[in-house]
Amino acid sequence: MKKKTSLKDIAQEAGVSTALVSYVLTNKEEKARVGQEMAKKIRKIAQKLNYQPNHIARSLKSGRSDTIGLIVADISNPFFGNIARTIEDEAKRNNYTVIFGSSDENLDKSSDLINVLLNRQVDGLILIPTEGSEQQIKQLRKQQVPFVLIDRYFPQLPVSQIGINNFQASYNAISHLVKTGHQRIGMIAYKTALYHINERKRGYTEALADNGQNSMMKLARYSHIREETRQAIDQLLRGRKPADAVFFATNSLAIEGLKYINELGIKVPEELAVVSFDESEAFDLFYSPITFIRQPIQEMGNAAVRVLLEHIRNGEKTPENICINSELVIRQSSRRR
Amino acid sequence: MKKKTSLKDIAQEAGVSTALVSYVLTNKEEKARVGQEMAKKIRKIAQKLNYQPNHIARSLKSGRSDTIGLIVADISNPFFGNIARTIEDEAKRNNYTVIFGSSDENLDKSSDLINVLLNRQVDGLILIPTEGSEQQIKQLRKQQVPFVLIDRYFPQLPVSQIGINNFQASYNAISHLVKTGHQRIGMIAYKTALYHINERKRGYTEALADNGQNSMMKLARYSHIREETRQAIDQLLRGRKPADAVFFATNSLAIEGLKYINELGIKVPEELAVVSFDESEAFDLFYSPITFIRQPIQEMGNAAVRVLLEHIRNGEKTPENICINSELVIRQSSRRR
Repeated sequence: MKKKTSLKDIAQEAGVSTALVSYVLTNKEEKARVGQEMAKKIRKIAQKLNYQPNHIARSLKSGRSDTIGLIVADISNPFFGNIARTIEDEAKRNNYTVIFGSSDENLDKSSDLINVLLNRQVDGLILIPTEGSEQQIKQLRKQQVPFVLIDRYFPQLPVSQIGINNFQASYNAISHLVKTGHQRIGMIAYKTALYHINERKRGYTEALADNGQNSMMKLARYSHIREETRQAIDQLLRGRKPADAVFFATNSLAIEGLKYINELGIKVPEELAVVSFDESEAFDLFYSPITFIRQPIQEMGNAAVRVLLEHIRNGEKTPENICINSELVIRQSSRRR
Repeated sequence: MKKKTSLKDIAQEAGVSTALVSYVLTNKEEKARVGQEMAKKIRKIAQKLNYQPNHIARSLKSGRSDTIGLIVADISNPFFGNIARTIEDEAKRNNYTVIFGSSDENLDKSSDLINVLLNRQVDGLILIPTEGSEQQIKQLRKQQVPFVLIDRYFPQLPVSQIGINNFQASYNAISHLVKTGHQRIGMIAYKTALYHINERKRGYTEALADNGQNSMMKLARYSHIREETRQAIDQLLRGRKPADAVFFATNSLAIEGLKYINELGIKVPEELAVVSFDESEAFDLFYSPITFIRQPIQEMGNAAVRVLLEHIRNGEKTPENICINSELVIRQSSRRR
C-alpha cells in the first residue's frame, strides 16, 4: 500500500505547524484561534492529498472504536442474513459500523470469533449464541464487555436478551391446526439443548395436551438435517394412522421437509397440512403457500442495537429482557379439512 | 468494560520484568534465554488473568491486521450471503478474519464503507462493486490498496476480477429454450449500467438472432423491482402472440416474477416456460422446479481470497482476471413443448 498522507505532509504543504493542522482537522467548528482562511486552506490540502484520519490510533487514545461485533450462526441462512442487515442499518443510523462473523454452530469457532472481535477493540457484541456457549457468555460478563443476546437465549443467565415468546407462538400455531380440523399433528424439531427450540417444542406439546391430542414429535440433528428430516417424515406418515399435519420448528427444517414431501408426491394441504416457524421466499412460491410464524426481525434487530448502545454509553446497570410478539400468518397450507 | 490485563499485571504477579513477560508471550517456542519453568509460570498467570494481546497496537507496529474487508450489495440476499460465507471460510483457513458490510446498491454507502474499512486497517478488500463505482475503484488503485472485484466487474479497468462468462451462460440458456421448442422467448433484466447484467442481455439477444427469433426484452429498476417486474410480465403476456418462455436475469427478478405468475394462475411450463440466473431454495420447491444457471460460488469465493492474499503478500504485479464456467441445471420448468 502507498504511504498514507500524514499531518506532517499537510503541514509542510500549508507552511504551518503539525499541531495547527491537527487542531483544525479534529475540531469541526472554527474557533477564534485559527483564521477561517487558514482553516479552509488546510482542509483543502488534506482533501487534495486524500488524508484519512487514523481511526485505530484514535481508538487507542479514546478507548472507543464505534464498532459493534456481530456473531450469527450462519450468514448464508437468510434468517440470519436478514437480522444482520437490520442490525447493520440500525447501527449505521447511530454512526456505528458492524463487523460480522459466522460461528457455524461450533463452540470453538464461536470462542475464536469472540476473541478476534474483542481484539479488534469492538465497543460491544451482539450474539446469536451457539448451543453450549453459556461459559463463553459468562466469561464476557466477567470481563464486563457490553453485549446483548438475540434470537437464542439462556434464561438462567442475568444478561440482556432480545427474543420472541417461542412457547406462545408454537402454542398458537398448534391451536390453529386443531381448530382447522387436524387430529394427528406431528412436529419436526432439532435435537438440541437450545432453549428457544425447546420452548417451541413445549408450546406444541402443551397445546396438544390441552386439546386431548397425543404428541408426535420427531427430532433431527442440525449436522444431519437432510437424512434425519426425511426419516422423521417417513415415521410420521407410516402406519394406519399417519399424521394429517406437520409443524416445522425452523425454516431450514421446513425447506428440507417440503423438498421430500414433493418427492413423495404428497399433496399439501389435502393429504398433509404444513405450518412452519420463520419466513422464506420458498414458502410464498410453494403451490400451496405455507402458513408460518413471522418473527419480528426488524424490531428484534433495532432493540438489540438500542440496548447495546445503552450498555456501551452508560454501563450495564440491570440486564434488559425484551420479548417481542410474533405473528401467525395463515395461508393455504393449513386450510380447514 | 473492565480494565484489561496488561503485561505489567502479569509481571508483578510473576515477580519478573515486563520485558520478560512480553518476550515469553510473543515467542511461541522456548529459547535458551528463558527457563522452561518460568515460561510456563508466566503463561499460566496470563491465562488466569485472562490476558488478551492487543492486536490493534500490534497492527500499528507491523502494518498488518490479518483482516480482509468485504463489501457486498446486500447481505440479506442469499446469493451474497453464500458468497460471504465462502469467503469467510476460505479466509479462516488462511488465518484471516473477514469484516463485512452492505453497500445497498448505493454509491455513497459504498464510499463510506470503503473508508470505514480502510480506516480499520484491513489488509485488503474484496468488493462486489455498486453500479457507477468506477471512480471509487480507480481511487483504490491509486492508493495501492490490494483488492479484488468479484461477481460484478469493470472490463475496462486493469484490476483483478473474478467472475463467470455471463454472455456464454445466457447464450446457452436461450439455446436450450430454442431447442426445447420455444418460439417467443422474453427476458426480464435490470435497467442498469452494470457490465455483467448487460452481458447477460447480450447473450440473450445474440442467441435469439442466431436462431432467427426476435428479442422481447423488458427492463425493471432495482429500486422498483416489484411493480416493474409485474408490468414486464403483463407486457410479455398480452397481445395475440404472447411469450411462451421467460428468462430472468437474477434470482430476485425471478422470485418476484414467479409470485406474480402464480397470482395470475399461469401454468409453468405448459403456458410459460421459465429459466433463471442464480439458484434459490424457492426454485427447488416450486411445483415445477425451475431450470437455472448455477454460479460456481465456492470457486469464485476461493479464487477471490487466493488472489487477494497474493496481492497482500507479494504486491500486485499484474491484475488477474479469472473467469469460471457456470452450469445450466435443466429441470421441469423448461420441458420440451
